[in-house]
Amino acid sequence: MAQVIADRREIDFVLHEQFDVSRLSKYEKFSEFTRKTADMIISEARTLAIKEILPTLKIGDEIGCRYENGNVTVPAEFKRAWNQLIQGGWFAPCQNPEWGGQGMPRLLHVMAQNYLIGANMSLLMVAGLNQGAGHIIERFGSEEQKHLYLEKIYTGHWSGTMALTESECGSNLGDLSTAAVKNEDGSYSLTGNKIFISGGDHDMTDNIIHLVLARIQGAPEGSRGISLFVVPKFHVNEDGTLSERNDIVCTGIEEKMGLHGSPTCSMALGSNGRCTGTLVGEENKGLAMMFLMMNEARLMVGAQALSCASSAYLYALNYARTRIQGPPISGKDRASVAIIKHPDVRRMLLTMKCYTEGMRSLLGYIANLEDQKIVSDNNEEKERYQNLIEILTPVGKGYVTDRAVDVCNMAIQVFGGYGYTSEYPVEQLLRDVRITTIYEGTNGIQAMDLLGRKLQMKNMKLFFDLKDEIQKTVSEAREFDSLSALAGRVENALHTLCQAVEKMDQSARGEAVLQAYTFAGLLLEAAGDVIMAWMMLWRAIISQKKTDSGVEGKGAEFYDGQLKSAEFFIRSVLPVTLGKMVSMMDLCSAAIDISDTSFGGK
Amino acid sequence: MAQVIADRREIDFVLHEQFDVSRLSKYEKFSEFTRKTADMIISEARTLAIKEILPTLKIGDEIGCRYENGNVTVPAEFKRAWNQLIQGGWFAPCQNPEWGGQGMPRLLHVMAQNYLIGANMSLLMVAGLNQGAGHIIERFGSEEQKHLYLEKIYTGHWSGTMALTESECGSNLGDLSTAAVKNEDGSYSLTGNKIFISGGDHDMTDNIIHLVLARIQGAPEGSRGISLFVVPKFHVNEDGTLSERNDIVCTGIEEKMGLHGSPTCSMALGSNGRCTGTLVGEENKGLAMMFLMMNEARLMVGAQALSCASSAYLYALNYARTRIQGPPISGKDRASVAIIKHPDVRRMLLTMKCYTEGMRSLLGYIANLEDQKIVSDNNEEKERYQNLIEILTPVGKGYVTDRAVDVCNMAIQVFGGYGYTSEYPVEQLLRDVRITTIYEGTNGIQAMDLLGRKLQMKNMKLFFDLKDEIQKTVSEAREFDSLSALAGRVENALHTLCQAVEKMDQSARGEAVLQAYTFAGLLLEAAGDVIMAWMMLWRAIISQKKTDSGVEGKGAEFYDGQLKSAEFFIRSVLPVTLGKMVSMMDLCSAAIDISDTSFGGK
Repeated sequence: MAQVIADRREIDFVLHEQFDVSRLSKYEKFSEFTRKTADMIISEARTLAIKEILPTLKIGDEIGCRYENGNVTVPAEFKRAWNQLIQGGWFAPCQNPEWGGQGMPRLLHVMAQNYLIGANMSLLMVAGLNQGAGHIIERFGSEEQKHLYLEKIYTGHWSGTMALTESECGSNLGDLSTAAVKNEDGSYSLTGNKIFISGGDHDMTDNIIHLVLARIQGAPEGSRGISLFVVPKFHVNEDGTLSERNDIVCTGIEEKMGLHGSPTCSMALGSNGRCTGTLVGEENKGLAMMFLMMNEARLMVGAQALSCASSAYLYALNYARTRIQGPPISGKDRASVAIIKHPDVRRMLLTMKCYTEGMRSLLGYIANLEDQKIVSDNNEEKERYQNLIEILTPVGKGYVTDRAVDVCNMAIQVFGGYGYTSEYPVEQLLRDVRITTIYEGTNGIQAMDLLGRKLQMKNMKLFFDLKDEIQKTVSEAREFDSLSALAGRVENALHTLCQAVEKMDQSARGEAVLQAYTFAGLLLEAAGDVIMAWMMLWRAIISQKKTDSGVEGKGAEFYDGQLKSAEFFIRSVLPVTLGKMVSMMDLCSAAIDISDTSFGGK
Repeated sequence: MAQVIADRREIDFVLHEQFDVSRLSKYEKFSEFTRKTADMIISEARTLAIKEILPTLKIGDEIGCRYENGNVTVPAEFKRAWNQLIQGGWFAPCQNPEWGGQGMPRLLHVMAQNYLIGANMSLLMVAGLNQGAGHIIERFGSEEQKHLYLEKIYTGHWSGTMALTESECGSNLGDLSTAAVKNEDGSYSLTGNKIFISGGDHDMTDNIIHLVLARIQGAPEGSRGISLFVVPKFHVNEDGTLSERNDIVCTGIEEKMGLHGSPTCSMALGSNGRCTGTLVGEENKGLAMMFLMMNEARLMVGAQALSCASSAYLYALNYARTRIQGPPISGKDRASVAIIKHPDVRRMLLTMKCYTEGMRSLLGYIANLEDQKIVSDNNEEKERYQNLIEILTPVGKGYVTDRAVDVCNMAIQVFGGYGYTSEYPVEQLLRDVRITTIYEGTNGIQAMDLLGRKLQMKNMKLFFDLKDEIQKTVSEAREFDSLSALAGRVENALHTLCQAVEKMDQSARGEAVLQAYTFAGLLLEAAGDVIMAWMMLWRAIISQKKTDSGVEGKGAEFYDGQLKSAEFFIRSVLPVTLGKMVSMMDLCSAAIDISDTSFGGK
């Protein structure tokens, strides 16, 4: 039977053959997570996704959320699925079991997420915020805050939000104007308006715990005067029961292109002068705390994008196998065939396969770095893991979301006219995934993060660490006759990337700073392409070894598919990447030199 | 004040400075269309678009079409706009005035269309089918058919459709199964089911005239047994009054990603055994007639895509000028600025500008070829014009629609989170424009048309004619110091394109046929990129001349904007194009060699 959302064989390949997740079980922290347990967890996620969550996908899109008198309601099916997620412990899988988390390796969670999010990104978007909101409280909150909120958030009985954006302040949080005044009892009274708050209100949980950025009266201007507060929808008594309603109210929800099942709320704080919250950590350190959590949030967005792409690929693949249309391009037989037989469709499918698998490996790799960092007792090693995580995060968010949009877009194309209708889920997947290139820092911000922060940190050490990792794989691939030519191409691309990075880095620190930032997005793209090639080469090495050891039948076809992905991507996509690097290094200044008037339109 | 839909200065540039539309007025056929008249027509289209049609855009999207008991209703605002289009004579602007057309040069129409379609593609989609449907009747229909239907169609009092697609037969029309049986009175009884029929039913006109492809009983199998019929919704009496209802009934409309205002209908023919129509032209020649009209229809789709892109660009530009966010990347002043000041936003805007202007010039160029073909009395010249039209049509449809999707997508990105909401029109523009890469032959079909038909026709003569035209512009640009380096780059890209085309053509005719078709889409992309560069270089020549002649003020800024577009595109995009050509010429066979099973998912 056709698989949906994610190919289980593929998931297992990443989990066991590429990263060997069960190796972590020799450490006490992850001792429960043997191979058997890991497989069981993936199976559970898959079953839950297909049986309980996938049926809510279209309902969420068509019915969506409703707003009335300050309250948001979601379809009844969502509440049922939410409760199933509670039962499965899916609200804080990687967090501390002491507070209701599952203590799961991130690698395992990312693969499980592929199923859960791929079944309905809207629902999992709201559910997915709990881990981050809770993590902030766990890491920076007071004992009282933890006691009052944490377990409820980690177990999904309450939900969490991140309330950052205001109407005049999106990418640049330093300008925010929500105000906080300290009360005599040590709490703070907040006034202001937030927009674009995912899950700002809904009826899936009894309480919602908002993490709100605001400026305390008299604090410095800009980003150095921002503090972080816990603002519950309902105040909470010492014994955990709900007390009175706080003055933080949803004033409306956005009509959006997609993600209709996830309420995007405008929130009014203190309209009646009675919104109170408690400070998290120190005053004026809010932005720093938020940024510490940012990598995590950005990688979740990458996981959302991957999940949509993975779903879209399988829908398109299954359709291409069954849809009969037109005779083959060549040959004597003129009978119509399944469209998977047509070269243009094969090109689209293989392109989608390459990106989906490459992105899955990349997000798995980053998650695995997190896990290794946790179990390592070697500080140098820990630092190297962190370096790699830091430099790969803008790729795991920016590049992955851009390519996921491409994959979902291509899925529509495989379906032809049917893909444009809501008879099939691919048009919804494109509408849903489209937000991922925007939120948690637009991809323009990701590109600036790569060029302006991650490259400059430790004098390019992060990039060099990454380069070493890629080089290792290239060197290993060279040992195989079948892969040495491909390895040479990847090495050549890596070499050119190093030149491009150096030139871009120098420019960004010098006179040509504006030109450099003009092409920051292209740098992110080119780096992402090389990283995809790296992942596919890595997969090819594993597959070549298995093939050489004599695997047969369907197993052999799987590995051969890996070799074909690597060949196709490295031979057909990397030349275009080299073109991007040539373009970038030319540092054309036309976009900077052109006057604002010359853009026209006035 | 900010302009919307299309920049009037830009439209005038293409109309008068690049193609000199009024030069056509020296020919009798176009004698009315002096510069003054041309300007008036554009002004009228613009006013109608902005005042009457644009207000229907969001209504069409939100309310859309309703289906009930075989009838489709559209919002009342649509009917009002439709009537305005009737008054303006916008249903058959280029057709024969004898039958109610306006006899306008196509070049002028394409520029007017930019405003009309850009205001609401849904509405203009339904209105836009009249010209094609009428044209078939005018060219191939009997005197009686013309007498009964033509003027009503050309004037917009009735509407027309093209009923080709069936559920099992989309890209490959040879498989269609709608059946026709000849009656004693010479009419035909039809039975079958059509899907995806744009404007198949609606309440904007009293009658709808369907042009239906069907197979006459006993006709050959495949594409050689298909005939074309006129099937009116209501039969028509000799005196033009409506007679009884024909048995062609809408059975439902599609829920779609976008284009909600354009009803996409399933049609049942002869469910009650009473659907009759009349044959157009000869039996079994239906597909040939339809294909003769195909270029026109495909170029209309290109015009739709351009119009959406043009609108999206101006919305994004106007937003970028007014949205304040974040301080400049460099410099001492840390106050927030309009986002048009940020390099990444400038890069997006200039990219959108390049594509929008390049595509406008390309569609203007093709339209101008049509006009020149009409007025020319030299057969060799006419043939050359037709060659250019033929080879440019897949680019004008396939490449233009793909890039228009990119431009609309980028517009959302410029808006950030707001772009994802329906508060601004850009997310609708992306949803609307997305269909253009699919209908009238998917872009995969366009790529096959280029590689498999247009290149092979007359032994590559069409391509060589195109190459000569591009070369002329390159040679002219070489004369200008400021442009010679850019000209060299375009010439280099053209030279590489010639090599790629030759290799692809040889491969498509030989052993590597499947590999060649794997990369047909990439060939279309690369050819389109070079053609964009050509158009921008051409525009730069005109602008350099004007600049050299001493134009000042806002005029000078417009021309400088043209020079900047050319520089940016040729320096920053063409290197990527060269990469695409390297990729293509490698003709990697992985997508062909991979087994169906190895794609996974089972």
